[in-house]
Amino acid sequence: MSGLIRAVPEHLSALDRGLAYGDGLFETLTVRNNIPCFWDEHMQRLTEGCSRLGIPCPDLSGLKAGAEALCMDSEGKGAVLKLIVTRGQGGRGYRAPSDIKPWIGMSLHHAPEYPSSYATDGIRACICKTRLGTNPSLAGIKHLNRLEQVLARNEFGDDCQEGIMLDGTSSVIEGTMSNLFIISGQELITPEVDHCGVAGITRNRLIEWAGAEGIGCQVTKTLELEQLFAADALLVCNSVIGIWPVRQLENVTFSVNNELLRQIKNGFPALCA
Amino acid sequence: MSGLIRAVPEHLSALDRGLAYGDGLFETLTVRNNIPCFWDEHMQRLTEGCSRLGIPCPDLSGLKAGAEALCMDSEGKGAVLKLIVTRGQGGRGYRAPSDIKPWIGMSLHHAPEYPSSYATDGIRACICKTRLGTNPSLAGIKHLNRLEQVLARNEFGDDCQEGIMLDGTSSVIEGTMSNLFIISGQELITPEVDHCGVAGITRNRLIEWAGAEGIGCQVTKTLELEQLFAADALLVCNSVIGIWPVRQLENVTFSVNNELLRQIKNGFPALCA
Repeated sequence: MSGLIRAVPEHLSALDRGLAYGDGLFETLTVRNNIPCFWDEHMQRLTEGCSRLGIPCPDLSGLKAGAEALCMDSEGKGAVLKLIVTRGQGGRGYRAPSDIKPWIGMSLHHAPEYPSSYATDGIRACICKTRLGTNPSLAGIKHLNRLEQVLARNEFGDDCQEGIMLDGTSSVIEGTMSNLFIISGQELITPEVDHCGVAGITRNRLIEWAGAEGIGCQVTKTLELEQLFAADALLVCNSVIGIWPVRQLENVTFSVNNELLRQIKNGFPALCA
Repeated sequence: MSGLIRAVPEHLSALDRGLAYGDGLFETLTVRNNIPCFWDEHMQRLTEGCSRLGIPCPDLSGLKAGAEALCMDSEGKGAVLKLIVTRGQGGRGYRAPSDIKPWIGMSLHHAPEYPSSYATDGIRACICKTRLGTNPSLAGIKHLNRLEQVLARNEFGDDCQEGIMLDGTSSVIEGTMSNLFIISGQELITPEVDHCGVAGITRNRLIEWAGAEGIGCQVTKTLELEQLFAADALLVCNSVIGIWPVRQLENVTFSVNNELLRQIKNGFPALCA
């Protein structure tokens, strides 16, 4: 498998509910110096996800020990750690078994080799046709039902680096693999993720950082496409890419020298040191 | 695993996209006399699903040979065959690999032991709180993103035999594991499954059968809860249960002696002979 360093375990039961129904959760962490970054933040989201889905939360100290052991295989180079927790094996049928034994999988991957220009000069983004379905029961958490993202990502090839996804009412929500912020005047604006979308770790950290820095940051109920195209600057973010400014969205270009954008790029610790 | 006769293969890679993203499809068939029922209809939906998701469709004659070989293990007793097709292994990231090698899994299970009264005297059903998200890209096909059904099914225990699910606009769509028809006067009415829901094999066969019998059957854009509660009779159907009349929905009781319902029960071959 291209990019894989090691998966533990390498296999799982064909009767696992993670396969049958996407009945589980995942987390993707950047690994620096053999250490997974922002572990506590990822575990907080994983715990929330387990609670929302009714999956017993794994023992987090054991999970950390296992993750740190696996991350030693990155040999000090940048890497990505992916954790998956499922409801475990079950018979046929949607009803969860009474004796749930979650399955836990970890895989360590070489860091993706993105050109450094994506972070410095920005990326090209497009608007995806595939929409995000609205479901408050599933919004925010990082569950394994990701066909919308798969379909959206496969709408474009190497011509764009990220695709922006809208909900069924054409409100802007996020990127296929990232959260989205617009810069409007002196303010950051990002959509709520309470009816669809993922509550990204970097998104949450950026909102907190902005607050601490006295930078206005509005988490908005609706973000329309017109606001997106009228923004002074755009950025997408996640735990692996950090922050990428958007220099072009469809046929519209945006400044990557916006003052607030530069302040974020210089001051916000998107990836751990 | 309770109810399992055999799974082939027993395991799959922890890097399979079926696990990572629910990136695949499934079919559930009733097995009678060692033969999977309505094979062609299930394969038609599977083919449509593969096409919609951009997964190469497996060789269907090979799949049939494998399925029939596995079904011999049912030893002439009623059983259920589940097929899963995924996009196969992939690296990290939503983008589908260029060299897709689908994974195919089959499992044979003992038939669930439902009381015969469910088919003759009807079932109790409830209305689920968990809503179906709207997504035309995914509607109709039997994909592996089934967390909505898992959450809905786990809202109730043994007090109901099926839960009815609504979309985000409170329109009635289907059951957690079945399709729904109402009987209103001399007519069957069932919701469209073009924005959410599954195009059930038994649903499609019942619509066709009704047409051939000269029974009115309306596939409606919207079915409101008021129509449901005002119906003369209700039924749910799928490939495993056949047809179950609903004798009670929440606190409202329905006739299971409705004339059209009896005509369906007596005339429609819900399960193969």
